Amino acid sequence: MSSIKASIITIGDELLIGQVIDTNSAYIAKALNKIGVQVTNRIAVGDNKEAITEALINTSAKSNIVIITGGLGPTADDITKPLLNEFFGGKLIIHQPTLDHITDIFVNKYKRPLIERNIMQAEVPDVCEVLFNENGTAPGMLFTKENVLFFSIPGVPHEMKGLVDTHILPIIQKRFKTPFIEHRTLLTAGIGESFLAEEIKEFEANLPSGIKLAYLPNFGMVRLRLTGADIDSNTLNININEQFAQLKNKVAAYLVTDLDETMEMVVGRLLKEKNQTVATAESCTGGFIGHLLSKHAGSSQFYTGGVISYDNRIKTEFLDVPTEILQTVGAVSKEAVEQMAIAVREKMNTDYAVSVSGIMGPSGQTDEKPLGMVWMGVASKEKVYSKVLYLRFDRSRNIEVTATQAINLLRLLIINKI
Amino acid sequence: MSSIKASIITIGDELLIGQVIDTNSAYIAKALNKIGVQVTNRIAVGDNKEAITEALINTSAKSNIVIITGGLGPTADDITKPLLNEFFGGKLIIHQPTLDHITDIFVNKYKRPLIERNIMQAEVPDVCEVLFNENGTAPGMLFTKENVLFFSIPGVPHEMKGLVDTHILPIIQKRFKTPFIEHRTLLTAGIGESFLAEEIKEFEANLPSGIKLAYLPNFGMVRLRLTGADIDSNTLNININEQFAQLKNKVAAYLVTDLDETMEMVVGRLLKEKNQTVATAESCTGGFIGHLLSKHAGSSQFYTGGVISYDNRIKTEFLDVPTEILQTVGAVSKEAVEQMAIAVREKMNTDYAVSVSGIMGPSGQTDEKPLGMVWMGVASKEKVYSKVLYLRFDRSRNIEVTATQAINLLRLLIINKI
Repeated sequence: MSSIKASIITIGDELLIGQVIDTNSAYIAKALNKIGVQVTNRIAVGDNKEAITEALINTSAKSNIVIITGGLGPTADDITKPLLNEFFGGKLIIHQPTLDHITDIFVNKYKRPLIERNIMQAEVPDVCEVLFNENGTAPGMLFTKENVLFFSIPGVPHEMKGLVDTHILPIIQKRFKTPFIEHRTLLTAGIGESFLAEEIKEFEANLPSGIKLAYLPNFGMVRLRLTGADIDSNTLNININEQFAQLKNKVAAYLVTDLDETMEMVVGRLLKEKNQTVATAESCTGGFIGHLLSKHAGSSQFYTGGVISYDNRIKTEFLDVPTEILQTVGAVSKEAVEQMAIAVREKMNTDYAVSVSGIMGPSGQTDEKPLGMVWMGVASKEKVYSKVLYLRFDRSRNIEVTATQAINLLRLLIINKI
Repeated sequence: MSSIKASIITIGDELLIGQVIDTNSAYIAKALNKIGVQVTNRIAVGDNKEAITEALINTSAKSNIVIITGGLGPTADDITKPLLNEFFGGKLIIHQPTLDHITDIFVNKYKRPLIERNIMQAEVPDVCEVLFNENGTAPGMLFTKENVLFFSIPGVPHEMKGLVDTHILPIIQKRFKTPFIEHRTLLTAGIGESFLAEEIKEFEANLPSGIKLAYLPNFGMVRLRLTGADIDSNTLNININEQFAQLKNKVAAYLVTDLDETMEMVVGRLLKEKNQTVATAESCTGGFIGHLLSKHAGSSQFYTGGVISYDNRIKTEFLDVPTEILQTVGAVSKEAVEQMAIAVREKMNTDYAVSVSGIMGPSGQTDEKPLGMVWMGVASKEKVYSKVLYLRFDRSRNIEVTATQAINLLRLLIINKI
C-alpha cells in the first residue's frame, strides 16, 4: 500500500526568530492524519523568496500534497501570493466573490472605507482554484502541478482551521484513495517512562508490523499511543483493538483513561457522570486549575467556581486559614491547603474541592522550603487529603505540572483511591 | 557579510500527527537569533530512519549549525542515538559521568533499581563531544562533519533549555564570528492591521536596506517588529534606534508598549511602578485572567487574588450581584460585571479590579445574547467602567482574547485613558 504523503510549509520570519509558536502545523497534521494522509515533514521558512521557492521544490518532489500557511496578509512583508503566482506561472486577477466579501466586512460591518490594500487581498492568480475564506479577507488557493496539490492558506489560526475543515479535507478525500489510519491512546499516572517501558517490553516486541507504539511522557504521567494503518478498515480495527486491549491489561494498575483526553477532561467526565461539582482554592497556580477545569465546553455542569488566594490575606479572609497557621507552619503547608480545600468546598457548597499552595520560582524559597515545593489538598464531604511534591522545573512548567497533579489527586479522591 | 546559518530538526511522530505542539523550535530559534545566528529553516520529521537521514543531509548542505531535538528517550521508538552513531561512523561507549549522574538520580533520589534501559542512556557514540545534561538522563551530543556542527539534544523542554543555554550557545559563540542582530518591538491596540499598514506605508517604503519591518496581528492588537543586522554593533544600534523612534512617533496614538512584552506584563509593570494592586472577578474566563496576571515572576507584588464566579450562585454569594440583576438583564450584562468589579475590589481591598462575564461557546447563546458576546468591567476607588465585545472565534480563542482585552481595559484605567 502506498500512502498519501503530505508536507506542511509554514511561512513567516516570526517562526524563525521564535517570536510565535507554530500551533497551525499541529492542527493541520492532526486533521490530515485523521483522513489517512501521512505528514512526512514540516518545514518553517522565513518571508524570503529563495527559501520559500526551495521549500516548494523540495517538498513537491516527495509529497502528493503540500499545504502552505502564512504570508498572505495585507502588508508588505507578506510575499506568498506574488511568489506563488510567479512559481505557477499565472497572472493576478480580482476574485469577485472575495471582493464582495471584503467589501461587506469593511463597509457594512466595520463601517470603514475600503482601501487599496484591502482590494488587493481579493487578487488571486488566474491559475488557481479559489478556496473561499468565510472567516477573513485573504482567500485560500489551490494549485496543481505534476499531480501534486498545493494549498495556500492564511496563517491566522481560525481562518486556517475554517479552510482546512471546509475546503482542504473534502478536496483531498475526493481526489485520493486514502488508507485507513487508527490511533488508540491511553494515559497512565504514577510510573516513570523507563519503568513502564520495562513492563511492556515483551508486548512492544511482539506488535504486528502494521502497528506502532509511541511514548509521550510528562511529569509523573505517560501517554501511550498505538497507531495502525491498513487499506481494509475492518482488519485494521480488529487488529488495533486486540493490541490495545492487551496493552490496557498490561498497564491496568496505572491506567487513568483509555481515551485521548487530558487529565482535566477525565475529571470533568467523572463529575458529569455522577452529577457532582467541584470548587478550587488556588494560591501558586493563580487561576490555572480553574482555567483547565473550565476550558472545555460543558464545564458549567461541574465547575462551580473558586477563590484565587494569591495573597496570604485572602487565604485568611476568604478561606479562614488561621493567621496562626500562616505564622507557624506557613502558607506552603499541609495545614494550609487542607483548610483551603475544606473552606472553599463548604462556602461554595460543592461535592469536592481542590487546593494548592507552593513556591513556583524563580525566587521565594526559604531554608525549610525549597523552590518547587508544593502542597496540594482535596476534600469531599467525608474526607480531606493532602500531598507534597518537589518540582524542579521553571516557573511556567511548575504551574502546569502542579495544576495537572492536583487534578489527578482530585480524580483519585473521586474514584475512591485515596 | 556572510551570516551564520542554522537549521533545526525536531524528531518525533507526535509532531507529525499533531499530538503535541512544537514549542522547542521557538525557544531554540529565539536563543540563536539573539547571538546573531540566522535560523533559515526548521524541519519536523517522524521517528523514521530515512526521513531523519535525509533531513541531516539536506540541512547540512546549507547550514553551519544543525540542532536536532528529540528521539533520545529510553524507549524503543527513540532511534536518534543509534542513527547518529551510524551516520557519523562511531561506536557506542559508556560515558562515565553520565552513568554516575543517572545512578545518582535513580538509586539515591528515586530509590529505584537501575535497569538496563537506564544504563543504555549513558551510552554515547565515541565520535561525539558529550554535553552533560544536568536536568535529565539523556546526554546532549556534538558531532562535527565538514565544518558543520550537529547538536543532538533531548526534546523534554526543560532539558532542552538547559543544554541550549549552558552548552550550545557558548560553543557557537566560541567557534563562529557572529554578526550583530537587533530587534525593536512595539505593541499597538485599537487599530486593525491594514489601517495601521496604511498609516506607516511611507515609513516602511523608506526603511534602509539592513532593516526589516514585520507585522504580528492579534485581535484588536498589532505587534510591529524592526529587525536589523550589521557587523558593527554601534552602527546597527544607531540606525535601528533612529528608525524605531520614527516608528513610535507614527503609531503614538495606539502605542501600548515599546518593549517586547505582553499586555499583562505591561499592566504588571505599571502596577509595580505605582505600588498598586489588582483583584479579579472572572466568570467565562474561569481563572485565565488570574493565570495571566500571576504567571510571571514578581506578580505577588501587585496581584492580590480573585473570585472565579463560574456559577451564578457564586456571583451572588461572593460578589453581591443581586439575583434581580441576574433574573432581569442576566449575568452577561453591564450591571453584572460592574458589580463584580466593585465587589471584588472592595472585598480584597485592592486599588483596581477587573471582571468578565460572557458566552464563550460553543453553546449558551440566547435570542438577545449571541455566542462570543462578552462584558468586561474595571473599577478603581473612584471609577467603574465597562465595555461589551462581540467575538467570533472558538471557545479557547474567545477565552484568550477576552482575558487580554480585559487586561487592556485595566491598563486604560490605570493610565487614566478611560
